[in-house]
Amino acid sequence: LNDGMFVHVRRMLAQMPACDVALLLQSTPVAGRKILWQLTDPEQQGEILEELNEDAMESILKMMDPENLAAATEGMDIDDLSYVLRSLPADIYQQVLEQMDSEERHRVEIALAYPEDTAGSLMNNDTIALRPDISVDVVLRYLRLRGELPEATDALFVVDKDNKYLGDISLARLVTVDPKEQVAAIMGKRPERIIPVSMHEGQVAQLFERHDWISAPVVDPNGQLVGRITIDDVVDIIREDAEHSMMGMAGVDDDEDTFAPIWQSTRGRTLWLAINLLTALMAASISNLFENTLAQMATLAVLMTIVPSQGGIAGTQTLAVVIRGLAVGHIGESNTRWLILKEVAIGVLNGIIWAIVIALVVTLWKDSIQLGLISAAAMFADMFMAGLAGVCIPLVMKKIHIDPALAGGMVLTTVTDTVGLFAFLGIATVLLNHHIAI
Amino acid sequence: LNDGMFVHVRRMLAQMPACDVALLLQSTPVAGRKILWQLTDPEQQGEILEELNEDAMESILKMMDPENLAAATEGMDIDDLSYVLRSLPADIYQQVLEQMDSEERHRVEIALAYPEDTAGSLMNNDTIALRPDISVDVVLRYLRLRGELPEATDALFVVDKDNKYLGDISLARLVTVDPKEQVAAIMGKRPERIIPVSMHEGQVAQLFERHDWISAPVVDPNGQLVGRITIDDVVDIIREDAEHSMMGMAGVDDDEDTFAPIWQSTRGRTLWLAINLLTALMAASISNLFENTLAQMATLAVLMTIVPSQGGIAGTQTLAVVIRGLAVGHIGESNTRWLILKEVAIGVLNGIIWAIVIALVVTLWKDSIQLGLISAAAMFADMFMAGLAGVCIPLVMKKIHIDPALAGGMVLTTVTDTVGLFAFLGIATVLLNHHIAI
Repeated sequence: LNDGMFVHVRRMLAQMPACDVALLLQSTPVAGRKILWQLTDPEQQGEILEELNEDAMESILKMMDPENLAAATEGMDIDDLSYVLRSLPADIYQQVLEQMDSEERHRVEIALAYPEDTAGSLMNNDTIALRPDISVDVVLRYLRLRGELPEATDALFVVDKDNKYLGDISLARLVTVDPKEQVAAIMGKRPERIIPVSMHEGQVAQLFERHDWISAPVVDPNGQLVGRITIDDVVDIIREDAEHSMMGMAGVDDDEDTFAPIWQSTRGRTLWLAINLLTALMAASISNLFENTLAQMATLAVLMTIVPSQGGIAGTQTLAVVIRGLAVGHIGESNTRWLILKEVAIGVLNGIIWAIVIALVVTLWKDSIQLGLISAAAMFADMFMAGLAGVCIPLVMKKIHIDPALAGGMVLTTVTDTVGLFAFLGIATVLLNHHIAI
Repeated sequence: LNDGMFVHVRRMLAQMPACDVALLLQSTPVAGRKILWQLTDPEQQGEILEELNEDAMESILKMMDPENLAAATEGMDIDDLSYVLRSLPADIYQQVLEQMDSEERHRVEIALAYPEDTAGSLMNNDTIALRPDISVDVVLRYLRLRGELPEATDALFVVDKDNKYLGDISLARLVTVDPKEQVAAIMGKRPERIIPVSMHEGQVAQLFERHDWISAPVVDPNGQLVGRITIDDVVDIIREDAEHSMMGMAGVDDDEDTFAPIWQSTRGRTLWLAINLLTALMAASISNLFENTLAQMATLAVLMTIVPSQGGIAGTQTLAVVIRGLAVGHIGESNTRWLILKEVAIGVLNGIIWAIVIALVVTLWKDSIQLGLISAAAMFADMFMAGLAGVCIPLVMKKIHIDPALAGGMVLTTVTDTVGLFAFLGIATVLLNHHIAI
C-alpha cells in the first residue's frame, strides 16, 4: 500500500466480496482504513458498512460527508440502515435523512421509531405475505413473476386482509406439497414463533437459539405483521452478548475497536482504571488501620496479600457461572434459592480445603503455627464470603437493573479484599494486643 | 413436584416441545433432573438430549442403561448422535453401538472417524443431491414425491456421477426460476462456500458468521460431497467459543453445569485456585525479599498493593481485547507489529496518567513527596509492562498452541504483580539503604 499502487489495490478491492473488504478494514489501523475506504467501490460501500462492527463503522462514518453517506446507504436493508443512522451525530443524521427520497425516508423513520435493542429495531420489512385462500400453484407463479427473494427467506408469511398474521409456509413445504393445495390448509400456525415488536433482542436471540429458527415474523400489538427477523442478525447479537460478558468482566468496552487510535482506546479504558484505583485505595486504607500491627511484624505484610487473592479468584469463578446462567436464561425465581445454597456450600468446601493448605504452607514457611492458624481462619472467612458475594451480587444487580457483567467483578473483589484483609490483620492484631506470640 | 403429582407432570412434559424440556432440565438441580427425566416421554428423549449442553447431557447419560440409550438415540441427527457417543465412557459406548442396527452403526462409525472440532464432526449427511442435467421441473416433481425436506434446508446440492460437488441451488432460486431451466444453468458455483471436511470448527463458524450462510456443503479431499453443516450447529459453536473466553478468563471450565452437584463444581474449580495460590505465594515471596524494608517502614506495606492491582487491571484490559481480536480473526501476521506498538503506547500513556494521579494521592495522604515519587515510578513501570505483557502473552501462547483465554490471565497477573512489587519495594529499599528519608 505504501508503494502507491492505488490502481492495483482498487481493482483488488472491487473483486472482493463486501464481507471480506469489511474484515480487511477492521483488521487495519485507522489511518490505513481511511485510504482503503477511499479506494473501495462507492456502489459497494453500503454493503461493506453493513458488515462492519460498531466502532469500525463509526471511524469510517466520521470521514464521509452526508451526500456520500446518503448515496452509500441507498438500497441497504432497513435494519442495517437504521443501525447506521443511530450511530451518527444528530446534525449529520438530519442531513443524511434530507438527502434521501421521501419514500426511503418514510421507511427509515418508521424503523427508527422502535427503541434500540428491541425486536423492532432488529427486523427487516422485506417480508413476502400471502393470503390464505390461494393455492400453492398461484403462489409459485407469483414467485416466478417476482424473481429473486429477499436474503435468508426460508418461509413466506400468511396474513388476512387486515394484515393480521395467520401463519407461515416454509419454502421446504412449498416445494414438497401438491400444488393444488390451499395456503390455509398447509400453513404452519406455531403461535410461539410470533415475536412481539417490543421484545428485547436478548430474548429474541434466546428463542432463535433454542428453537433453531432461520427467520421469524414480528407482529405489532394488534397482531399485524410488521416485519421479520433473520438468523444472521441474531448471530451478531449472540456474539455481541457473549463478548459483552467477557469484555465487561475484563473492564473494557465491548465495542472497543482492536485497531482504534491509541488515544481513543486509552480514554475508553480510563473509567475502569479510575474505579479500580479507588477500590485499591480502599483496600490500602484497610491495611492502614492496622499499620501498628504491621510495624510490629513485617511478616504479616508479606502474607497479607495471599488470602484476598485467593478469595478474589473463587468469587470470580462463582460470578462467571452465575452471569452465564443469567445470560442463557437458566436462572429464574424457582431455582435461585438452590443456587445460592449451592455456591455458599462450595464457598464452605473451598474454605476448608484452602484453609488446610495455607495453614500447612505458612506454618512450614514461617515456622509459626500461630501464623498458619491466622491465615487459615482468614482464608475460611474469605472463601465463604467469596461464594456468598459471588452469587448474590449478580442476582441483586440483575434485580435492580445494573449489568452484573460490567460492575460485578469490581464490587466482588472489593468485598473479598476487604474481608480477607480485615480477617487476617484483625485476628493478628487481637492476638498481638493480648501479648500472644505469633 | 414434591407433591408426587407425577402423572400431572408427565402429561405436562409430554406436551412441551423438546427444547423447552431441555431448558427445564438444565435449570433443575441434578437430583430433581433425575426424576424429571424419568417422567419424559421415551420417544422424545433423543430430541431432548440433542438440545442439552455437554455437562447436563452427561449427568443424564450417566443414569441411563445402554439399551434405553440406544432406543433414545434412534433417529437422532448423525452429528448429534456422534456428539452423544463421544461423551460416553468407552464400555457403555461399545454397548450402545452393539444395540444399534448395522446400518445405523455404519453411519455412526463414519461420523466418529472425523476428529472432534472439525467440520467432519459437525456435519450432517442428510443432503439432497441433484444431477446437473435435469430440469427444475423434474427437481420439483422429485421433491413432491419425496415429501419433507431435512431441517434447515435452504439449498440443494448439485453433484456429478462420481458425487463430486459442482454447485448449489437455493430453494429461493428454485421457486423463482422458470421450471424449464436446467439445473446446470441456474446453479450457483461459489467455490468459497465449499467447506473441507478437515476445517476447524472455529473457522467454519467465522465463515458462516461473515457470509451469513444458513447451510454449506462439506467435501472430502477428492472434492466429493460428504455432508452439510447448518447454521443451528454453528450458533452453538459461536456461543460456546465466546463463553469459553469469558469462563476461561474467570478460571471456570466453560462446560460447568450451573446446577451440577456441589462436589463436582468444587472439584472443577480446584485446579485454578491451586494455580492462583502458587502465584499468590510467589508474590508473597517477593515481598518476603524486602521484609527488612517493610520492618523499617510499615507504610510501605500499606501502599504496596496499589500498583500491582492497577497493573493487573490494565493488563487484563489489553489481554481481553487481544483475545477477542484473535477469536474473531482480526489479528494476523500483517497487523501484529502495529498492535504491539499500540498496546505498548497505551501502556506508556496509562503509565503517565496513573503515575501522576498516584503521586498526588500518596503525597497528600502520607504527607511524603518521596513516597509519592516511589509510587509513581513503580506505577509507570508496571503499566508499561502491563501493556507489553497483555499483548505479547496471548500472541505467544497462540503461536505455541496454548489457549490464551485459559492461561493468559494467570500468567499476566503474575507478571504485573512481580513487576509492581519489585519496582515499588525495590526503589524504597535502595533509598532506605542510602539513608534517604522517605
